[in-house]
Amino acid sequence: MELPNKDGSLGLEGIDKYELLSDLAKRRGFFWPSYEIYGGVSGYLDLGPLGAKLKRRIEDKWLDLFVYQHGFVAISTPVITPEKVFAASGHLEHFKDLMVSCEECKRHFKTDYAITEAMPGRTDIAVEAMSVTETDTFIDENHIRCPECGGKLGRAEYFSTMFKTNIGPYGDVPGYGRPEAAQGIFVDFKRIYETSRERLPLGIAQIGTVMRNEISPRQGPIRLREFTIMEMEFFFDPEESQCKYLNAVNVELPLYLTKTREQHSTDLTRVSAHEAVKRGFVLTEWSAYFMALSVKFVSSLGIPLDRQRFEEKLPAERSHYSSQTFDHQVWLDRWGWVEIAGHAYRTDFDLSAHAKSSGVDLSIFKPYAAPVEKKATVIVPLESVLGPLLREKAKAVISALISSKAGEVKAAFEKSGHFEVQGFKILPSHVRFEERSIREAGRRFLPHVVEPSYGAERVVYSALEYSYNRVKDRVVLKLPADLAPTQMTVFPLMAKDGLAELSLSIREFLLGHGFEVEYDESGTIGRRYARADEVGVPISITVDYQTKEDRTVTLRDRDSWQQVRTEWRAIPELARQFLQGKLTFTELGTPVKTSYE
Amino acid sequence: MELPNKDGSLGLEGIDKYELLSDLAKRRGFFWPSYEIYGGVSGYLDLGPLGAKLKRRIEDKWLDLFVYQHGFVAISTPVITPEKVFAASGHLEHFKDLMVSCEECKRHFKTDYAITEAMPGRTDIAVEAMSVTETDTFIDENHIRCPECGGKLGRAEYFSTMFKTNIGPYGDVPGYGRPEAAQGIFVDFKRIYETSRERLPLGIAQIGTVMRNEISPRQGPIRLREFTIMEMEFFFDPEESQCKYLNAVNVELPLYLTKTREQHSTDLTRVSAHEAVKRGFVLTEWSAYFMALSVKFVSSLGIPLDRQRFEEKLPAERSHYSSQTFDHQVWLDRWGWVEIAGHAYRTDFDLSAHAKSSGVDLSIFKPYAAPVEKKATVIVPLESVLGPLLREKAKAVISALISSKAGEVKAAFEKSGHFEVQGFKILPSHVRFEERSIREAGRRFLPHVVEPSYGAERVVYSALEYSYNRVKDRVVLKLPADLAPTQMTVFPLMAKDGLAELSLSIREFLLGHGFEVEYDESGTIGRRYARADEVGVPISITVDYQTKEDRTVTLRDRDSWQQVRTEWRAIPELARQFLQGKLTFTELGTPVKTSYE
Repeated sequence: MELPNKDGSLGLEGIDKYELLSDLAKRRGFFWPSYEIYGGVSGYLDLGPLGAKLKRRIEDKWLDLFVYQHGFVAISTPVITPEKVFAASGHLEHFKDLMVSCEECKRHFKTDYAITEAMPGRTDIAVEAMSVTETDTFIDENHIRCPECGGKLGRAEYFSTMFKTNIGPYGDVPGYGRPEAAQGIFVDFKRIYETSRERLPLGIAQIGTVMRNEISPRQGPIRLREFTIMEMEFFFDPEESQCKYLNAVNVELPLYLTKTREQHSTDLTRVSAHEAVKRGFVLTEWSAYFMALSVKFVSSLGIPLDRQRFEEKLPAERSHYSSQTFDHQVWLDRWGWVEIAGHAYRTDFDLSAHAKSSGVDLSIFKPYAAPVEKKATVIVPLESVLGPLLREKAKAVISALISSKAGEVKAAFEKSGHFEVQGFKILPSHVRFEERSIREAGRRFLPHVVEPSYGAERVVYSALEYSYNRVKDRVVLKLPADLAPTQMTVFPLMAKDGLAELSLSIREFLLGHGFEVEYDESGTIGRRYARADEVGVPISITVDYQTKEDRTVTLRDRDSWQQVRTEWRAIPELARQFLQGKLTFTELGTPVKTSYE
Repeated sequence: MELPNKDGSLGLEGIDKYELLSDLAKRRGFFWPSYEIYGGVSGYLDLGPLGAKLKRRIEDKWLDLFVYQHGFVAISTPVITPEKVFAASGHLEHFKDLMVSCEECKRHFKTDYAITEAMPGRTDIAVEAMSVTETDTFIDENHIRCPECGGKLGRAEYFSTMFKTNIGPYGDVPGYGRPEAAQGIFVDFKRIYETSRERLPLGIAQIGTVMRNEISPRQGPIRLREFTIMEMEFFFDPEESQCKYLNAVNVELPLYLTKTREQHSTDLTRVSAHEAVKRGFVLTEWSAYFMALSVKFVSSLGIPLDRQRFEEKLPAERSHYSSQTFDHQVWLDRWGWVEIAGHAYRTDFDLSAHAKSSGVDLSIFKPYAAPVEKKATVIVPLESVLGPLLREKAKAVISALISSKAGEVKAAFEKSGHFEVQGFKILPSHVRFEERSIREAGRRFLPHVVEPSYGAERVVYSALEYSYNRVKDRVVLKLPADLAPTQMTVFPLMAKDGLAELSLSIREFLLGHGFEVEYDESGTIGRRYARADEVGVPISITVDYQTKEDRTVTLRDRDSWQQVRTEWRAIPELARQFLQGKLTFTELGTPVKTSYE
């Protein structure tokens, strides 16, 4: 709606690309709904041979671009997470959705889905910001009914969107399927900081399965109950927050700022990453840098910049841990603007929560060039009082108290009369405060965190949608060559006279060099080219009678349909360079006079 | 115990390698117990930067060797699986362990653990084969007590070792964390067979997270509640079961056969894969082939053949779906023989179960060269009887009946008076049998399946244990070069005179070529070599004053400690070939006269 029509030459006006792509995806093996033979369970997706390969290539690209090229690290932590971790991180309290159920057909809906279905185009309604009562009132006043059957909707209620289970026999330890990979990183931060020789800034990434028990997912690959997250928690010293790469990135950020949204406008503010920080649109240099890298990444998947934007989230839309969030959105044919990544400024929210809850000091120490003399208020827990009171818990609570900030404790006493540590209410009579003159050799602080986070399946789907092209009534999947799941396919001109055997041995030769190579002998060469185009195979190889004479084959380019002839033993090196964009197609051989169609 | 002592030159006699390795793994970032700051939850493991990288390299190697080099495929399906899938596959009934609890300390134990702890060395006791009552009697008669506190053990009871959860609000759909990736492949078989142009044999692999709610795991990386499985379901026509690669593999299989086990011997039967089939030790050619490939894979991780064996499982030890199972075991210092892979012959057990339970015909059709005339008994469901009886279920049940074998239905009638389909009892009065003369254009059958299946974390751990060496009081992790997580590390001779900056820019250059490269400027060169050796970095690069003159650096070999000098711009191509084993170290440059220690 906000965008002009798609390029007329594709001949796709009025057709839903999602339908077209889903059909192709099922037929050729990219993706389909899980558990189909049992009627399916919504919110689950299987990746077939081509889809799984495409996803792994995209993961490798992301790892290389965001992590390894910077010398950052990637780790792997479990999906099932004990309750205390999510109690500390705030997910137990905040990771929930408002749900309404239809009193007639009994179906359940996310409240914001029911409301936006009933009031299309009203993007200004911040459903997330409403309380339960406000939601009920809004539904009543606007006469919102069941989106499926038109029946009366019941009262709104919260539903936890984490999957719950029990670890071990008899439910000793309640656990949850993690809704993000980040908490596995936060609880490990201190150890990884130590194994990484105690340097900041430090990026710690993770690619892995996450689970979100969505109420009624009905958007195919876009809203899944289980998906792969690619996310990085980037830790930096908030007092030394400069990003050395910021000026080197030459990318324009298309920002859709809250102030624009609040004016009911869809205008974008286009600025460089550097400008975005300077003008106060983006709070940290590293966020702006990762947003620029994000544009580079998403563009490299074949999604043009004018179909990308960063939507700044309103305070009520942000997750509980975030001080600023930009969703990296791309325009999808059926759903409009869809988030494929989030860029959140998590500050020290998570480390601070885990330090408090676990009693383990997660701060780091940075020495000054020379020691500094300072006056400071410190908190002194009265061990003689707390010891008998807390018994075996005393040690952990005292240690947590010592690492708390005196200012925060005082503020809590003033506000509520107590300060909570590990579930205990510490009263003013349990501690005293001392003014001390301290000789500080350095600074102790909790690093701040910015987080770029991607839903891999959405990225895969978006790359597929933008690669979907029609050329002369034929589907050509113009995936970037370095992402193509199948890289080459080998055809014998005829399946006789030894050409099939020769083709198969050339395929084995290429498989042995680590390429993904198909073999196809059925139908005309033209039909085989069409089948290869439909799944985005960059190079088709035809083996003919001349091959038996001089070991040359024809190579045919998916995008230009040009053909060249070359020796088949030279293909591994040539193909490697072509797929990496280092050689053009015409550099792969000599142009062909009689080509196969 | 069965094996001779470790090589004396390592100086490791009497030291537990698991302890040594765990310490190194924590300190340098391979692995550690999850949720440490919260006191940990047993059965969960985090992979740090080096461990995660090593695991991904091992996964890629497995995918290449088992899947892509054969032109097979890999897919990806969800962890959470609806109950009906596991009801059909038999996991709901069979995936459980016998558990005993101590009446005094209240700890829970797997029964076989409690028994083998009390009776060490008695490997002949098949605890898995005992019923609940037999177990109780055995515990009483042998006076087996709590392995932790010596207290009295309670009665044995079954505990389901799948993690249970609910999909969607109000627990509409019970679901389980999958204990194997195989079922996602079986329910998808028909679709993938179609997308793969309907060819057999067909290998469908999957690498992904699986969950097993172990009772009391206490073996570090060896018994996890969540791990990554690498498994392939290989589908073939049981009437055309030849494996074309069988004779090409030149590997000796060290078989530990049930008949040997039953004689309380630990002797191995060493035969070629071809011999193993011919002499009836292994039931299918494809199993024997994958076992040979398994030896090749495990050996390529640095684990010598004399520390590998295939233990044939006793019928009572096999999973419910398997007609023959060989565990590929490796010898680990602390635990002795440990299974790192299973090779199961699953026949058509799973496809048959899902076809029956879902009512979807999962058989495939293979045309004969020419049609064949045949007499056959067919089953004819009486629609006029079943229709009113089953209403909306009738269609599915009738379709399932038609695809059932007449002989099986007759046998069931004789045995129990009914035949069960999708929970309904079909009586003789619901069907009739007809002798028909059928002109068959081909054969319809369910493919058979053999399955090689690996626990990735155990493979990672085993590779690490076998790479652990001591040389001159220094730890050297002699990981195969193609698996090394960090491939190179760059040292400035001094962190001054621009050598640090030059080193960092050489590191960035190498990162840009896709290598994993560290930088280290602290301590003497000797200390830095030691640090690199300890995590198995194959090549250390020293940047010195000469580098500023002529762009050459020294390269130092982890294994031989030899040094050569070469131009740094040539490193990417040289290192690639060295890491793949195509160049030896001395071919990377000219020998160095004054080397750094």
